Amino acid sequence: MEVKLLSHTPEPERVVATAARLCYAPQAAEEVWAGFTPEKQQEFIDKLVDYGHLSPFEHVAFTFAITGVSRALSHQLVRHRIASYSQRSQRYVNEAAFAVVVPPTVAADPVAQEEFMRVIGQIQAGYNRLTALGIPKEDARYLLPNACQTQLIMTMNARSLLHFFSLRCCRRAQWEIRALAWKIRQEVIKVAPLLFREAGPACLVQGKCSEGAMTCGRPYTREEVDGEA
Amino acid sequence: MEVKLLSHTPEPERVVATAARLCYAPQAAEEVWAGFTPEKQQEFIDKLVDYGHLSPFEHVAFTFAITGVSRALSHQLVRHRIASYSQRSQRYVNEAAFAVVVPPTVAADPVAQEEFMRVIGQIQAGYNRLTALGIPKEDARYLLPNACQTQLIMTMNARSLLHFFSLRCCRRAQWEIRALAWKIRQEVIKVAPLLFREAGPACLVQGKCSEGAMTCGRPYTREEVDGEA
Amino acid sequence: MEVKLLSHTPEPERVVATAARLCYAPQAAEEVWAGFTPEKQQEFIDKLVDYGHLSPFEHVAFTFAITGVSRALSHQLVRHRIASYSQRSQRYVNEAAFAVVVPPTVAADPVAQEEFMRVIGQIQAGYNRLTALGIPKEDARYLLPNACQTQLIMTMNARSLLHFFSLRCCRRAQWEIRALAWKIRQEVIKVAPLLFREAGPACLVQGKCSEGAMTCGRPYTREEVDGEA
Amino acid sequence: MEVKLLSHTPEPERVVATAARLCYAPQAAEEVWAGFTPEKQQEFIDKLVDYGHLSPFEHVAFTFAITGVSRALSHQLVRHRIASYSQRSQRYVNEAAFAVVVPPTVAADPVAQEEFMRVIGQIQAGYNRLTALGIPKEDARYLLPNACQTQLIMTMNARSLLHFFSLRCCRRAQWEIRALAWKIRQEVIKVAPLLFREAGPACLVQGKCSEGAMTCGRPYTREEVDGEA
Repeated sequence: MEVKLLSHTPEPERVVATAARLCYAPQAAEEVWAGFTPEKQQEFIDKLVDYGHLSPFEHVAFTFAITGVSRALSHQLVRHRIASYSQRSQRYVNEAAFAVVVPPTVAADPVAQEEFMRVIGQIQAGYNRLTALGIPKEDARYLLPNACQTQLIMTMNARSLLHFFSLRCCRRAQWEIRALAWKIRQEVIKVAPLLFREAGPACLVQGKCSEGAMTCGRPYTREEVDGEA
Repeated sequence: MEVKLLSHTPEPERVVATAARLCYAPQAAEEVWAGFTPEKQQEFIDKLVDYGHLSPFEHVAFTFAITGVSRALSHQLVRHRIASYSQRSQRYVNEAAFAVVVPPTVAADPVAQEEFMRVIGQIQAGYNRLTALGIPKEDARYLLPNACQTQLIMTMNARSLLHFFSLRCCRRAQWEIRALAWKIRQEVIKVAPLLFREAGPACLVQGKCSEGAMTCGRPYTREEVDGEA
Repeated sequence: MEVKLLSHTPEPERVVATAARLCYAPQAAEEVWAGFTPEKQQEFIDKLVDYGHLSPFEHVAFTFAITGVSRALSHQLVRHRIASYSQRSQRYVNEAAFAVVVPPTVAADPVAQEEFMRVIGQIQAGYNRLTALGIPKEDARYLLPNACQTQLIMTMNARSLLHFFSLRCCRRAQWEIRALAWKIRQEVIKVAPLLFREAGPACLVQGKCSEGAMTCGRPYTREEVDGEA
Repeated sequence: MEVKLLSHTPEPERVVATAARLCYAPQAAEEVWAGFTPEKQQEFIDKLVDYGHLSPFEHVAFTFAITGVSRALSHQLVRHRIASYSQRSQRYVNEAAFAVVVPPTVAADPVAQEEFMRVIGQIQAGYNRLTALGIPKEDARYLLPNACQTQLIMTMNARSLLHFFSLRCCRRAQWEIRALAWKIRQEVIKVAPLLFREAGPACLVQGKCSEGAMTCGRPYTREEVDGEA
């Protein structure tokens, strides 16, 4: 899995702080924009998080190239509807030599790993025979496994990212999308630390698990978070 | 594939007509509501479609149980973001005896069909061996193919349905989601004919293909539409 | 202010419980649908709320006629984007005899009340003179006050309603939209008690204020909630 | 009215072209990104518009400071739900000296203009007296007119902007939001000409009015468009 931040709203913290300040300020927008020191930005952003007033976070967007992830992951990912996706199409791209994502539990068990790769080989052979028989790619792909690698470009605004982290950095999320969530978090913290340094799973951010009786019972500690990042 | 309309906003045509009328009427909402004959409803709804004022169509929602479709289809379907989905989870449900969707191009070719089913058998055997080895269902499923059947509950409002039909009833949509779109159209026409009888692909509704140079070149005729329905 | 529930998804609790159950059940959707007793529905819905898994709540929608509210309120209301609105247009409807919403703080003070109504009278006279001069209604309305009454048809799904209640039943919301939120809550509890009986402001639902340092400091008690309802 | 483009996704045309190309390309996202000349970008973007495949346009967002517009406009504007807004609050900002937007039909008629400004003066006096009596700003504002100036920060992605232009550059939109739409179009054409140079009202873009029987009957010509811009 690789996550690359392709592009993002410049000066994201100034944008968020300006939008927030505007609601209560008698000054004109441009004055507010010009008047922000980094310290003032920090102060404002901390207040927004404290008050739960997250709508100003929507004004900044982040665009990622995500590669080497499975179709199992992408099917989960696109369920996040306040976001934009462009994904490699299996209808149009030939998968004559597809790569796969191997789950860690499989990779850790030599017997399982061998079995897994054997079936992947059978699928690849089957796909190739179908296309050789003239079956269209869009139909041959019905054999392709969830493990098949895909790539996407995804754009999400900062508010939607905060929500994404709260659900998907959680230990109850599947390992692959959890890994993606932590990687994305790492990328955005580099360019917008004031916005995201407190972002993460609900246990960390709200100090309270949001999964009720399905809790994992092991809230993230600050040390673990710093380790993931 | 089976589509069952589980539930929908009652009196959908009266709701849409009332919402539309309210914008221009000096009367109170309840008076408008009570005053609508079916003829008046029809007149109003036809105007909305003619004017392209589709926001009143959002006030009515339709909930479907969709079964016997592939994960290839569901991955496309959930890209329609103005809708709600609940889908059977491969993380939690055991797929020890999964059913598959066989593409018509495969079913039409005995050699391809045999090849297809042979690989499906290999996948099923592999999945079962992995779970027998103690690999969690959520990881063993990385072998499962796009053909694997799933089921969903989907809710979409009438405006979003019109958009869905314009894209997915189109001949350029993949055959499976196109079949789904026509089936859904058939269901909603039964309960809301005034809203949907003119719904369908862009070539039918707007009298103009929306696919530009990628057009199929064969606009739907009214007879074909009546055949699909 | 009057709120009338015009229409809603029938059997809302069965719909939500079925959608939720489907994700984990090996059975077909229709079997799940048929198999739900009210007790089972309750059990399922309580779990969803406990786990914070609210997406099944999206499958049921509620449509209201809202009359006698101010344009101050409607401007706030339509900021809730996961909802549909049809509102009486001041561009097309003649406001030669508009009604107003008088804030309670004004109504409680005879001097303020007199002043308020005097200015309203001046606005009405000015609007009428402008239209008499041939100024289009859509421009004469630039004089009309926030107090001017409007009416809307609004449709919101149950998940969006829960969010709406958490923000707008709060004592820090403006009195008019807070009154609307409590009235809407009252209406939906009548038809879907299992879904909404625990709905309300964050202090009630999560047992924790979500406004940080801007807290009112007076969390709702169960008695007050029952009084509002 | 003033519109200032505060911030936007850098290299917007490269982002859109890359996202679009990725769907059909066997190469990795970064290779696609690096390989785009401006000519290739143009070719791709033209195809997207021709095919009506607008989802890649969602990956780029534009943030504007909008000042000197009326609350009549802002109430219309925020109905565009696929966008983010932060607006000056009349609950918290003192309007002891509010500015107004005067409609051109009023400004063109000295009698109407005098009447209009006289009523505005009465409103201002009334507002000030109410606050002097201790009425909270959030309630005194019930007297404030639609003409009252406000300011917003708005973020919209390029796809949503295209839709906004198609509706609001139209002659049937109210003059104020139409002026805003053309100004925003002017701003985005400066920084993303490949994306927006063909953007505008439906009559221009699709060569066909979308208002049905309510058409103004005067489709925009290319010369008029160049004049507006």
